[in-house]
Amino acid sequence: MQAKVYVTPKAGVLDPAGKATQKALHSLGFEEVRDVRLGRYITMEVEGDPTEVTARLDDMCRQLLANGVIEDYRFEVGETGVE
Amino acid sequence: MQAKVYVTPKAGVLDPAGKATQKALHSLGFEEVRDVRLGRYITMEVEGDPTEVTARLDDMCRQLLANGVIEDYRFEVGETGVE
Repeated sequence: MQAKVYVTPKAGVLDPAGKATQKALHSLGFEEVRDVRLGRYITMEVEGDPTEVTARLDDMCRQLLANGVIEDYRFEVGETGVE
Repeated sequence: MQAKVYVTPKAGVLDPAGKATQKALHSLGFEEVRDVRLGRYITMEVEGDPTEVTARLDDMCRQLLANGVIEDYRFEVGETGVE
């Protein structure tokens, strides 16, 4: 199965990379943007029983992919090859 | 409007961070994962006419948010506050 994991800075946590990106966008003339937040988008193929994959992905996020103190995560599991 | 931008390494382009993440997942016992690819997930608020926002976002991606040589991008625009 194809899994997509989204890791984002928690609301209220400072996001200096997002701030820097916003500043760069402004200086390029894109002054209509605000609240730019930078996260990670991780895709992977996962083998296994669909009923277990969700729990396994949750473990992966908690153990490695996200830092629970400052980041939120969510994920989607779908058929391989579906965008 | 809320915009979500997904930046991913192009197919065929080496992704050393994805490889390192996969190796780390394997060593934590998640041996069912493969093809781990690491991308960026950028969220922002964009002011403006909905018909223009798409073209503006495309410009932002080409000029700053993605490196067109090695990365693909796509984005979604929606109502603010909708997950």
